[in-house]
Amino acid sequence: MIRFECDYAEGAHSRVLERLTETNLEQTAGYGEDPHCARARAYLRRLCQDDSLDVHFLVGGTQTNTTVISAVLRPHQGVIAAESGHVNVHESGAIEATGHKVLAVPSGDGKLTAQDVQGVYDGHWQDVNHEHMVQPGMVYISQPTENGTLYSLAELTALWETCQARGLFLYVDGARLGYGLMSEACDMTLPELARRCDAFYLGGTKQGLLFGEALVLVNKALRRDFRYHIKQHGGLLAKGRLLGVQFCAMLEDGLYFTLARQADELAMAIRRAFADRGYGMLFDSYTNQQYPILPDGLLAELEKEFAFSFWCKVDESHSAVRICTSWATQPEAVRALIDALDRSHKA
Amino acid sequence: MIRFECDYAEGAHSRVLERLTETNLEQTAGYGEDPHCARARAYLRRLCQDDSLDVHFLVGGTQTNTTVISAVLRPHQGVIAAESGHVNVHESGAIEATGHKVLAVPSGDGKLTAQDVQGVYDGHWQDVNHEHMVQPGMVYISQPTENGTLYSLAELTALWETCQARGLFLYVDGARLGYGLMSEACDMTLPELARRCDAFYLGGTKQGLLFGEALVLVNKALRRDFRYHIKQHGGLLAKGRLLGVQFCAMLEDGLYFTLARQADELAMAIRRAFADRGYGMLFDSYTNQQYPILPDGLLAELEKEFAFSFWCKVDESHSAVRICTSWATQPEAVRALIDALDRSHKA
Amino acid sequence: MIRFECDYAEGAHSRVLERLTETNLEQTAGYGEDPHCARARAYLRRLCQDDSLDVHFLVGGTQTNTTVISAVLRPHQGVIAAESGHVNVHESGAIEATGHKVLAVPSGDGKLTAQDVQGVYDGHWQDVNHEHMVQPGMVYISQPTENGTLYSLAELTALWETCQARGLFLYVDGARLGYGLMSEACDMTLPELARRCDAFYLGGTKQGLLFGEALVLVNKALRRDFRYHIKQHGGLLAKGRLLGVQFCAMLEDGLYFTLARQADELAMAIRRAFADRGYGMLFDSYTNQQYPILPDGLLAELEKEFAFSFWCKVDESHSAVRICTSWATQPEAVRALIDALDRSHKA
Amino acid sequence: MIRFECDYAEGAHSRVLERLTETNLEQTAGYGEDPHCARARAYLRRLCQDDSLDVHFLVGGTQTNTTVISAVLRPHQGVIAAESGHVNVHESGAIEATGHKVLAVPSGDGKLTAQDVQGVYDGHWQDVNHEHMVQPGMVYISQPTENGTLYSLAELTALWETCQARGLFLYVDGARLGYGLMSEACDMTLPELARRCDAFYLGGTKQGLLFGEALVLVNKALRRDFRYHIKQHGGLLAKGRLLGVQFCAMLEDGLYFTLARQADELAMAIRRAFADRGYGMLFDSYTNQQYPILPDGLLAELEKEFAFSFWCKVDESHSAVRICTSWATQPEAVRALIDALDRSHKA
Repeated sequence: MIRFECDYAEGAHSRVLERLTETNLEQTAGYGEDPHCARARAYLRRLCQDDSLDVHFLVGGTQTNTTVISAVLRPHQGVIAAESGHVNVHESGAIEATGHKVLAVPSGDGKLTAQDVQGVYDGHWQDVNHEHMVQPGMVYISQPTENGTLYSLAELTALWETCQARGLFLYVDGARLGYGLMSEACDMTLPELARRCDAFYLGGTKQGLLFGEALVLVNKALRRDFRYHIKQHGGLLAKGRLLGVQFCAMLEDGLYFTLARQADELAMAIRRAFADRGYGMLFDSYTNQQYPILPDGLLAELEKEFAFSFWCKVDESHSAVRICTSWATQPEAVRALIDALDRSHKA
Repeated sequence: MIRFECDYAEGAHSRVLERLTETNLEQTAGYGEDPHCARARAYLRRLCQDDSLDVHFLVGGTQTNTTVISAVLRPHQGVIAAESGHVNVHESGAIEATGHKVLAVPSGDGKLTAQDVQGVYDGHWQDVNHEHMVQPGMVYISQPTENGTLYSLAELTALWETCQARGLFLYVDGARLGYGLMSEACDMTLPELARRCDAFYLGGTKQGLLFGEALVLVNKALRRDFRYHIKQHGGLLAKGRLLGVQFCAMLEDGLYFTLARQADELAMAIRRAFADRGYGMLFDSYTNQQYPILPDGLLAELEKEFAFSFWCKVDESHSAVRICTSWATQPEAVRALIDALDRSHKA
Repeated sequence: MIRFECDYAEGAHSRVLERLTETNLEQTAGYGEDPHCARARAYLRRLCQDDSLDVHFLVGGTQTNTTVISAVLRPHQGVIAAESGHVNVHESGAIEATGHKVLAVPSGDGKLTAQDVQGVYDGHWQDVNHEHMVQPGMVYISQPTENGTLYSLAELTALWETCQARGLFLYVDGARLGYGLMSEACDMTLPELARRCDAFYLGGTKQGLLFGEALVLVNKALRRDFRYHIKQHGGLLAKGRLLGVQFCAMLEDGLYFTLARQADELAMAIRRAFADRGYGMLFDSYTNQQYPILPDGLLAELEKEFAFSFWCKVDESHSAVRICTSWATQPEAVRALIDALDRSHKA
Repeated sequence: MIRFECDYAEGAHSRVLERLTETNLEQTAGYGEDPHCARARAYLRRLCQDDSLDVHFLVGGTQTNTTVISAVLRPHQGVIAAESGHVNVHESGAIEATGHKVLAVPSGDGKLTAQDVQGVYDGHWQDVNHEHMVQPGMVYISQPTENGTLYSLAELTALWETCQARGLFLYVDGARLGYGLMSEACDMTLPELARRCDAFYLGGTKQGLLFGEALVLVNKALRRDFRYHIKQHGGLLAKGRLLGVQFCAMLEDGLYFTLARQADELAMAIRRAFADRGYGMLFDSYTNQQYPILPDGLLAELEKEFAFSFWCKVDESHSAVRICTSWATQPEAVRALIDALDRSHKA
């Protein structure tokens, strides 16, 4: 069985483990106040071309999202997100558990537009009863989205300007940001992203680390006392250097991005293979997650050898699945999938 | 200016003030442990034909909803509600502030169906990732709804059976329950309602009291320690007897229901007046809230003499408004409205 | 049985009921946006000699405290209070329910000193692990305290300066503020108080209203969006004018203060009666709550005719009780108590 | 500089890293549903001699404590803990952030007694106003405590019986449980502990893992839906197997306990060295944390070569420090410390 279910099925890139082993018996201060974290922060600042950025390392995505959102919002405020956004559906109510409503906006492709945000904002403030309603305080987007789709630079710029003009905080969930930035369809750079939001994180867990997310606080107002928030949410890892060591391994020479580009290219090969054989895609993704719509018979055939994530029934005889590549995906595995598709398709 | 904007524009029925005055200098225990509250509880039990019911008196609706919902749900659970439900849109995020998501279901008329509930429930439990999602723990409905629409006995029974079969708690917001039960279109009695939910409240604020809601806990499992929850949510009024005295005044001989019936009849007169002249209604309401759709010119004309609540634009030249009657509405006021409609309509 | 148990055993001063009756059928806007509330706000501003103050009316004390404290604190902050403070012991965890720790300081008399505050503050910031600890964000005191004791102007000034110098918010719970200000031992005026805190409330429930507390926001930073917080905590009374009407009745000509002074004088008569007969007091109170320490035999004798609040056992044969006077206490009742004390004392 | 500041200064035991490397490219299911976690669960059940136990793996201690406590308590309940307990002072208010008060009890040695618990419980229920106060719902203790002190089997049994008789949940924080169980002064076994509490965790972070805590749910009532709680608190690690692999490495042949015993023995050598030279200890610890009270001159001398955690000033010329050994401490380091002590002591 070859697994394409998700992008966190394996451990870490070998270099990550080597560096953890090399530094293992060093004695360092805890909670992220060690030289490895300092070095990793410096790499991130350099990559973003902004020496002033505040960088924190947390363990996982839900934790990072919850910590940022609850630190930003006042008690009567909520966060605008696409209905399919991770914070709205896949965090077991972690945002609400901190007291805040997710103001969910329907979205076909998982993206929010500047118009969506303006609509929620105006809808709130034009309502005579707005004091009885949750006030929009920030906007949450993912780049790429949970559906693999990408914001263009123009779209992000429009969102950012909309947020700036309305006093809304803009936060970008980058669990798969490497896969996003390295996509052939992406027209923005990391520094461009960093100048168009108040905070974002560069995901490690799905991009070759054992675990870890690098949170970048762009907006200075958010930085004060931020480590208290991390600690309160259980995110201040005692041996914080484990995060620093891992991010150093991946960022010092760009390995993070090299691996992401490979995964994207393999995903595009899969995309083209399905397209060439006439199969449509549920979402128009150019990143490491692909969502082909397949006849149920073909799907059953492929699933004898390959594991996918079931996504949804499309009609009576077709289903969409998610196929993920990752930093760990071997070209041979993709070739095997395409060969199998060919055999089944012709049969 | 004659006001039809809402059902809480005046103070209280004169009998309520008289009783407060008569009992004013009595010295009683605080926090609802006085003879007036005891008597009011007895009236409610008798009206519900169930001597075992647990009854608490709270000050307002948002407080009552928040207290019940947060007392019922475990931390990972949410409450299913219509998208237009009061707890979803008009309580400034009070439910989320206690840590719980409102699982909102789109609804044209403000009602939830048994199918809606089953859909949310099945959608949750059939998802392979359900542990990453908020678990449905209870259902919130309003009788009548915020749109004035009513559940039939059959609909409520279906909801109740659906909830019972799935371990979901069913809670009925009765801010306007009197107007609901007294409607010509209502086919259920108070005892029938009380046997088809785990908790409900009989609203006082909008039905002739100065303030106050009578919460009835039907499900015995909810009763334990309930007064702690009320206190924590600021709902344990020091001079709790004020609530008991008011509910006694309204329930001892059925004044509560007499006033509600009058208000409904006046609302139906308004409804018929608009219908007879060819105006449609946004919602099919047989209770004290009516939602006529009017040409903007006619509306502007009427608003010279009458105050309504603006609801929404329907198309370029039409708007819907809410017209409320209440326990305090005078037949003359309704007659004046119909006369004005007639004049404007003909003009 | 004559009751001295608490200061909320009766309803309201007769003028309050009269005004509610007179204004009963007026149609006004809801939620505190009516002319009565506007007038009551003006009275408060004039009494405080500060036209810029923001004033809100809430229903009860727990609600008011919770709303203010949760609006002020950021998620990682807590509120410093005396161990016996109302927010620490008698609100069923309402403060913690909004996510915040009460940083309790032991206090013999129920008061916090500037030194106490400085100690907590320095203890926090000097700890190398302060990011792992709740950060002090504000100070909560009651004037008078739950023990009837009073802050002097010098003490309050020292607290205020300590808070100002450290970025701590100072909030004064004034559930019995009238009894405090009218005490023969009080050396501060209302304007002096209002210039030495960020927010305070002037209590109504225990001072002659049916219910209601007037919250004064002095610090401009707190005012933004404050009505959202009130609504979220269930404190935005639909018929908000009930609060305005009541406060107008009590403040328009100083009745609030006249009644408080009477209650204080009656309390001092009780205090002197016990002192003259050699009985000590648990707390050195010059306000409407008195805490005599009595032989258990004498106490049993008095309790045949009078109701007190049991406070604590002092030793094997003595107990302390709380004796409250209030706006409703009749001089005859106090005389009867002193006569009974005399009879029992001599016996 | 040789560091004795804490027990989490290094990475992990070499075997842990070897196993992570060996299993690195396996493809497994995420979120703890992999064979490694299954095997680690089996080891724990065997060590506890109870096949029915429910075992979950979380990343860190604050997260584990918060998840358990918020899953157990109802909204109006709090957790009894020693004033020095980790949940009371060193988790940045994480417990309060979930809505619950820590009911702190003063304790000289960091331990709670059965009498303490009974006192809090009786104090609550005997108070006529108990509905206005936070209800005790569970008891939190640490074995060993934050001060290195140990509960005896008799003390734990008394606590357990006290909790059982009062419906209180008993939870044991075992961040350093290995160091506790292996202490020469410990008279309880792991199975004996597991039969005297509702839940406990076996700490990994401070005992030779990179990170990770093994939470054991003994009480069946707590198990339902527990993974939702873990997810909501950001504790469901995507690559959950990292925890399983690490715990397998440490538990398969008892390495966890061997390392703990070594650390304890080294700590006792330090203890004896100070005692033999006449220095007292702040706490009577027989585990890996020692708290000698030293003249400030001697301390300054030692700190030239060794790092300790400053604990507190004891008097004008003496201070207490914390000296930790751990799984990683070398005997040579301890010898060097004792030699230096000897030199400084004589000087």
